[in-house]
Amino acid sequence: MRTSLLAVVLALVSSAFVLADEGQWPPDQISGLDWTDLKKRGMELLPDDIWDPEGRGLSRAIASLGGCTASFVSPQGLIVSNHHCLFGAVQEHSTPEHDYVRDGFYAAGQSAELPAKGVRLQVLRAFRDVTAKIRAASESAGDDRARTAAIERATKELVAACEERPASRCRVGAYYGGLRYVLFESTEIRDVRLVYAPPRSVGEYGGEEDNWMWPRHTGDFAFARAYVAPDGAPADHSAQNVPYKPERSLKLSTRGVRPGDLVMVFGYPGRTQRYLPAAAIERNVEFWYPRREEVFDEWMTVLEESTRDDPEGAIRVSGQIKSLANGLKNARGMIEGLNRNRVLEGKAAEETALREWVARKVEEEGSAISLLDELNTVYGADADTRERDFLLRYMPVGSKVLGFAQTILRWSREQEKPDIDREPGYQERDRQNRRDRLERAQKNLHAEADRRVLVYFLMRALDLPQDQRITAIDSLFEEALQPGADRRAAAEAHATRLYEETTLTDLESRLALFDTDRATLEKSEDPAIRLALALEPARDAWEEQRKTRQGALARLRPLHSQLLIDWKGGRIYPDANGTLRLSVASVKGYSPRDGVFMLPQTTLSGLLQKETGQEPFRSPTGLLETARAGDHGRWEQENLGSVPVCFLSDADTTGGNSGSPMLNGRGELVGLNFDRVFENIAGDYGWSPDYSRNVSVDVRYLLWILDRVEHADSLLRELGIEPSAP
Amino acid sequence: MRTSLLAVVLALVSSAFVLADEGQWPPDQISGLDWTDLKKRGMELLPDDIWDPEGRGLSRAIASLGGCTASFVSPQGLIVSNHHCLFGAVQEHSTPEHDYVRDGFYAAGQSAELPAKGVRLQVLRAFRDVTAKIRAASESAGDDRARTAAIERATKELVAACEERPASRCRVGAYYGGLRYVLFESTEIRDVRLVYAPPRSVGEYGGEEDNWMWPRHTGDFAFARAYVAPDGAPADHSAQNVPYKPERSLKLSTRGVRPGDLVMVFGYPGRTQRYLPAAAIERNVEFWYPRREEVFDEWMTVLEESTRDDPEGAIRVSGQIKSLANGLKNARGMIEGLNRNRVLEGKAAEETALREWVARKVEEEGSAISLLDELNTVYGADADTRERDFLLRYMPVGSKVLGFAQTILRWSREQEKPDIDREPGYQERDRQNRRDRLERAQKNLHAEADRRVLVYFLMRALDLPQDQRITAIDSLFEEALQPGADRRAAAEAHATRLYEETTLTDLESRLALFDTDRATLEKSEDPAIRLALALEPARDAWEEQRKTRQGALARLRPLHSQLLIDWKGGRIYPDANGTLRLSVASVKGYSPRDGVFMLPQTTLSGLLQKETGQEPFRSPTGLLETARAGDHGRWEQENLGSVPVCFLSDADTTGGNSGSPMLNGRGELVGLNFDRVFENIAGDYGWSPDYSRNVSVDVRYLLWILDRVEHADSLLRELGIEPSAP
Repeated sequence: MRTSLLAVVLALVSSAFVLADEGQWPPDQISGLDWTDLKKRGMELLPDDIWDPEGRGLSRAIASLGGCTASFVSPQGLIVSNHHCLFGAVQEHSTPEHDYVRDGFYAAGQSAELPAKGVRLQVLRAFRDVTAKIRAASESAGDDRARTAAIERATKELVAACEERPASRCRVGAYYGGLRYVLFESTEIRDVRLVYAPPRSVGEYGGEEDNWMWPRHTGDFAFARAYVAPDGAPADHSAQNVPYKPERSLKLSTRGVRPGDLVMVFGYPGRTQRYLPAAAIERNVEFWYPRREEVFDEWMTVLEESTRDDPEGAIRVSGQIKSLANGLKNARGMIEGLNRNRVLEGKAAEETALREWVARKVEEEGSAISLLDELNTVYGADADTRERDFLLRYMPVGSKVLGFAQTILRWSREQEKPDIDREPGYQERDRQNRRDRLERAQKNLHAEADRRVLVYFLMRALDLPQDQRITAIDSLFEEALQPGADRRAAAEAHATRLYEETTLTDLESRLALFDTDRATLEKSEDPAIRLALALEPARDAWEEQRKTRQGALARLRPLHSQLLIDWKGGRIYPDANGTLRLSVASVKGYSPRDGVFMLPQTTLSGLLQKETGQEPFRSPTGLLETARAGDHGRWEQENLGSVPVCFLSDADTTGGNSGSPMLNGRGELVGLNFDRVFENIAGDYGWSPDYSRNVSVDVRYLLWILDRVEHADSLLRELGIEPSAP
Repeated sequence: MRTSLLAVVLALVSSAFVLADEGQWPPDQISGLDWTDLKKRGMELLPDDIWDPEGRGLSRAIASLGGCTASFVSPQGLIVSNHHCLFGAVQEHSTPEHDYVRDGFYAAGQSAELPAKGVRLQVLRAFRDVTAKIRAASESAGDDRARTAAIERATKELVAACEERPASRCRVGAYYGGLRYVLFESTEIRDVRLVYAPPRSVGEYGGEEDNWMWPRHTGDFAFARAYVAPDGAPADHSAQNVPYKPERSLKLSTRGVRPGDLVMVFGYPGRTQRYLPAAAIERNVEFWYPRREEVFDEWMTVLEESTRDDPEGAIRVSGQIKSLANGLKNARGMIEGLNRNRVLEGKAAEETALREWVARKVEEEGSAISLLDELNTVYGADADTRERDFLLRYMPVGSKVLGFAQTILRWSREQEKPDIDREPGYQERDRQNRRDRLERAQKNLHAEADRRVLVYFLMRALDLPQDQRITAIDSLFEEALQPGADRRAAAEAHATRLYEETTLTDLESRLALFDTDRATLEKSEDPAIRLALALEPARDAWEEQRKTRQGALARLRPLHSQLLIDWKGGRIYPDANGTLRLSVASVKGYSPRDGVFMLPQTTLSGLLQKETGQEPFRSPTGLLETARAGDHGRWEQENLGSVPVCFLSDADTTGGNSGSPMLNGRGELVGLNFDRVFENIAGDYGWSPDYSRNVSVDVRYLLWILDRVEHADSLLRELGIEPSAP
């Protein structure tokens, strides 16, 4: 049944894929698209113009920006991304006197640019296939748990060797569930400085209300600049550093897009689940999303109530609330979308067809069928512990203090091992990042809110079903679990004492504990450390379970992918895995429901209609005055009679694509991707021609703001745009 | 400046009007439409096919149905209208055993049809211009108050003479604010019986949530039959009666409509305000709609709270709540729409242009300008008393018991005069209707809710500004108005005693009091009668004020209309006034806001998507099963792949058009108008090509239900439709 790996890879690379706007294509599969058709649709580039192993393609203008995507837009290291991707830097430098969050920021010259602490920019330099080494490790393992360990070790070895080159940041990406492994080598730039951010009322226009929604009128863009040492090598922030000279930078289109135009998204999509069996999706529909919906909603309420009469506290927890609200809407969108798009029915039908094909075509039919069966079993295996696992996962996210304690403890444990044996994420290469995170968390820490969230999770733990108890918590609350006892009072008392006595809420003490040796920590009297220690066995057991499952999947999924590839004649693309991808698309609207059609463009006049003067629909005065005066400069789209603000396309995107450039057929930047529509949240499980739409801010809105509202002439000139007369 | 009336009427009738889907055209202006253009758009009829004074036109198939419109659809007197127009009849016959509201109703043969009490069907027989007589009366009056009296008297005389013909119901309609008066003579049919009504979950699908909304999936239709005496004369309900034979009946189209198709609405639109000066609209935007919004909202809350734990009571007040919710949404739509459509700015600009034209073109410029100024003054004259007037208007609506008392008292007062001198609405010809209303109110009466609403209005009266007090109420609550006194307790106490002691909540006692002589009533100890008596002077004063204002408008508005007609070269149509009108339109969608386009048709598959299984989106099982089985019969629209359910057109409609037939270019029925979109609520003040859209149920949805869901074969055959094989 199995063909050779080489044959697969060749098949993938060489076969002319069915044309579809579905698919997030790795660079080396771009040439396999149907270029004849793309040309008809308006593509003026050749495959090599986009990706070329020698490094001359547009890909050199694309960078990964901590979970987002950015692109270079000047030879002086200027990058553009989403406002929400650079928001941390804006917030970091905001004070009551200089409220850049509220007012926006525009650096008067390079010396005024603001260093963005902890922001890392990675520019892909090269990648190579490392399947052989990882597969060999995988196949040498005696069981599934050992398989995960072997794959992890082989990965760490590859990464370590790769990172011996200075300023390199490397990672291994798995494709088709491990049918293929690729090592990516990027240059990591550590000195990134904020150049321009619009006021939050532009960059987040519509706020949570419009999040995941269309029509949209959000100016979700910001500019930063990458700096390196005078010798060109990446370096920590320093006054001596000079702007980085990217190998390529994107030209901004002044003509924008029209409905029907070909566009491309080039960026770093995080994770999709397009090849998950129906049983695994069903589990998510039944448990994962509903439980997230329930818990996130209650958790948000706890945060809101904790800071109801405390405006300063409310600001501290606002980031968490925003993120929970986003997760909540996502969960709801998933549930609705998986139902609306009949994803489960589709998957089930596909699985039936696959099994029929196996019965007809595959020699080793029995082993193929048992593969499919085992895959379903593995995906369903955690059903018995999922309530407990859910709490183990989210309790240390909810109580940041518990999370700090767990990080510190785990770090100390891993420090006792040789670097190569440490858990991924706890190696030397992760030290700075771990420390940064412990530090950065301070600005969003609100002890009382944190305490109440801990109480909330403790109460949930005390209410777990009998067969999924967390024994460490049961031991702590032995008395409270007696019939008639007051569990809530006990949880409150425990949490109150913990937050009174812990030193982890204090930044200095917390950083001092990081890198403390394990033995000292084990003797610590800090109640947060004690709680984390007590929970360690449960978390370890959960980790073992996950790693065993991971090993099973590393064994089964390549075979499953191979089966799918054989069945579909090579025409499948790999799931997103946080590596560089291209998606080709058209600017187009959609019908979210019967009787309604979403037009693919919004306008400045639409923004004025939406304006209520109240958050989140309150634009800055200057923008409103310019818009109301009809001062469109040259950024108007004639048939709209207004400046285009956002547009829709059917590009295949997911989280991680935030800030990705939207390119026209000439490779010019026509917009920045920043969201998907609500009906497309479930797109992670299956692209839909009807509902898969991403939302981008139109480059002409960005240019109109810089030109007519901000009069940011020097920035415009750096972008190659001549400012209009004032 | 004034041309002769005859010239005006001739100008109106003969000038070829600008083609626009704007305008609700009286029958005798239909021939003045641009028929060359209409033909191009798909009109296959000639003007005389629609209206012909000899009575052969389609107009003979159209009937007025108590605030709605109906049309004859068989030679056996079968009519079709909206479910909500015939709902009273469905409700009247519903019992827990035979819940026709819930389950729908289909008469097994004519003998099973259900008499609809109080339902009157009026078929227009003729009309004639009576301007000369009314204008003469108007011009003979010494002042504005006398003018109203003179016009009322002339009107009553005309009506009385007209109604001497048996079974005639007559009315005088004013056009262009009184530039023209027309006497309408209709045949009134008093025996109307319910033939078919779908379940409420079809007829009101989407409920309050979808009311005024698009997309829509409501099967808002029902059938009834008109009966007359064996000799053909209208008669009260009797077993001897036979089906009425209409002069014309409409053919149902089996082909339905497509986007872009020409359609016509023929019906009885109630009231529009297209020629109101900006100042009058401003007053409504500032006071009338916001106050309605506020009071209706609070009033609904009182009703809901009164019956929170009382399911039977909740049913009793549900009709009131529905009507308040409708009024509330209407008020909000007006406020939003008048702003969105910039009606005020448009009116102000128009007024400026009119004044400029007057300055250039009108000889008696001074009198024209002072006319415009005086008109504004008259419309603004009630500003000083509007808070009080608002309460005087709504208090007896809110407290039905107070309303009964007022009706009974007024009736007794008018009875003392000769019939011709009585207040319109209190003449002999109104006796049956007045009595019917006192009787029918019983089924929606809930004494405790009614009492609480009285308390609510009393509290508002006690809070009136100092210069708008209602002295009768102040006298009643003299003590409670002292500083420190508890007003609410006093209002509660008063209302509690009133509802304990009044006999008006009892149907028998109430009907017994109707027609009691004035002197007896004045001595009554019934506290509701006493309260109504106490309020009489305030209500009389308010009525005097209104009638004086009405007289001023009867003097000014004809001149104003004439000015507009002269200015626009004859191209204006009269405001709706509850008389028969035709509006020509196209099936088309619209963009309610930037980035969104409403498609002009909805489908059965869209209904299935909308279905939640919860009210108001819970369809009957039979309908769902048939729809899910894809059993579309021959009612599918091929390019939609489904049965069309509702459609939009840009017809010029308003309240009163409910149930109006939507006709195609051949005069066949393609749907029934039942609503407007939210953005078109403000359309009463000005038709908008962008937002004026009416909502109709597609005849194919109606036929699909009768054919594939209900298998109502005999009804289909009567409609001239051969049922499909089962």
